[in-house]
Amino acid sequence: MKKVLVIGASGTIGQAIVKELAQRHEVIQASRSSTTHPVDIEHPDSITALFERVGPVDAIVAAVGSLHFGPLTEMTGEQFRIGINSKLMGQVELVLRGQKYLNDGGSFTLTSGIGVDAAIPQIVNGAAVNCALEGFAAGAATELARGQRINVVSPTVLTESMPTYGPYFIGFESAPAARVALAYARSVDGLATGKTLRVW
Amino acid sequence: MKKVLVIGASGTIGQAIVKELAQRHEVIQASRSSTTHPVDIEHPDSITALFERVGPVDAIVAAVGSLHFGPLTEMTGEQFRIGINSKLMGQVELVLRGQKYLNDGGSFTLTSGIGVDAAIPQIVNGAAVNCALEGFAAGAATELARGQRINVVSPTVLTESMPTYGPYFIGFESAPAARVALAYARSVDGLATGKTLRVW
Repeated sequence: MKKVLVIGASGTIGQAIVKELAQRHEVIQASRSSTTHPVDIEHPDSITALFERVGPVDAIVAAVGSLHFGPLTEMTGEQFRIGINSKLMGQVELVLRGQKYLNDGGSFTLTSGIGVDAAIPQIVNGAAVNCALEGFAAGAATELARGQRINVVSPTVLTESMPTYGPYFIGFESAPAARVALAYARSVDGLATGKTLRVW
Repeated sequence: MKKVLVIGASGTIGQAIVKELAQRHEVIQASRSSTTHPVDIEHPDSITALFERVGPVDAIVAAVGSLHFGPLTEMTGEQFRIGINSKLMGQVELVLRGQKYLNDGGSFTLTSGIGVDAAIPQIVNGAAVNCALEGFAAGAATELARGQRINVVSPTVLTESMPTYGPYFIGFESAPAARVALAYARSVDGLATGKTLRVW
């Protein structure tokens, strides 16, 4: 049994990850709205405060972060920075700050998403942010100390999100959050490192 | 003959690009140190000021931006943001703001670099930033209007930079800046869009 910290535990994917991992592991649930383990990844000090409160863990799982959806021809730098500051830098900060709270042989699992490969409108911010996360994980895997590992899960559109995002993802097979959660389990319980685990 | 704006024209790659393109095109040279066409890509207002001064162009070429080199185990979020704010967001702002100054059928050519594929120490910031730029270009290519194109050139270590970066790139074949410049010419003069043109 591992001690696993799930950040973004209240989200659709987060809840499915908790359900999947709790079958075998002790799972600590953190999220922006949590009363016991609150964290806002856009405020790095709250990340450090979370790690200090929780103490050493065997796995850190992040299913969290915002992106900007909108047409490139009207996009501003401020809009583009929504994904940079939230989904990208939030998860990068979790790794940079989390290294010293992660036990020997422990794992990070971050979340990217289908984006550039989807070639759908208004997803350019996601394309850049998701590719950055995958490049970051591949690079970080070569340098992490003490046998620590890092992977990224790239989900397609969730079945649960089709009422909202369906019009963007015409022709795509959605995946239920419970199926996406299996990829996080492969990262936590397996030996992969530096990989992008695609669920699409 | 096209009207081409080269940003970062005073750098090693920039000078080689100017030399290559000036054989066929009118080339306007912008850089941080330029007295006629100064621009600091970390200050978006200076990007708009440059475009306003230069007027409509047929190609915008960027060979510019800083990264942080250093070990992951000691890296801070502030250090990681060096590459995010300079090489990534600087070039993204050039595209977001440049769209309306780029003529029909015009092209953007950005610069990423060997990074995650090199699997060398201390390059994790570059791995993330370069992947982000390549994802951004692939995504942006699908949405640009009026026949505009966008590509990214990914150079390996420059022969001219081996005195500085050689110790990181043991076993790598360097490329002279003049050879790297050919990839920018392929982007400006050819029809590719959404591509990463690797010089390694």
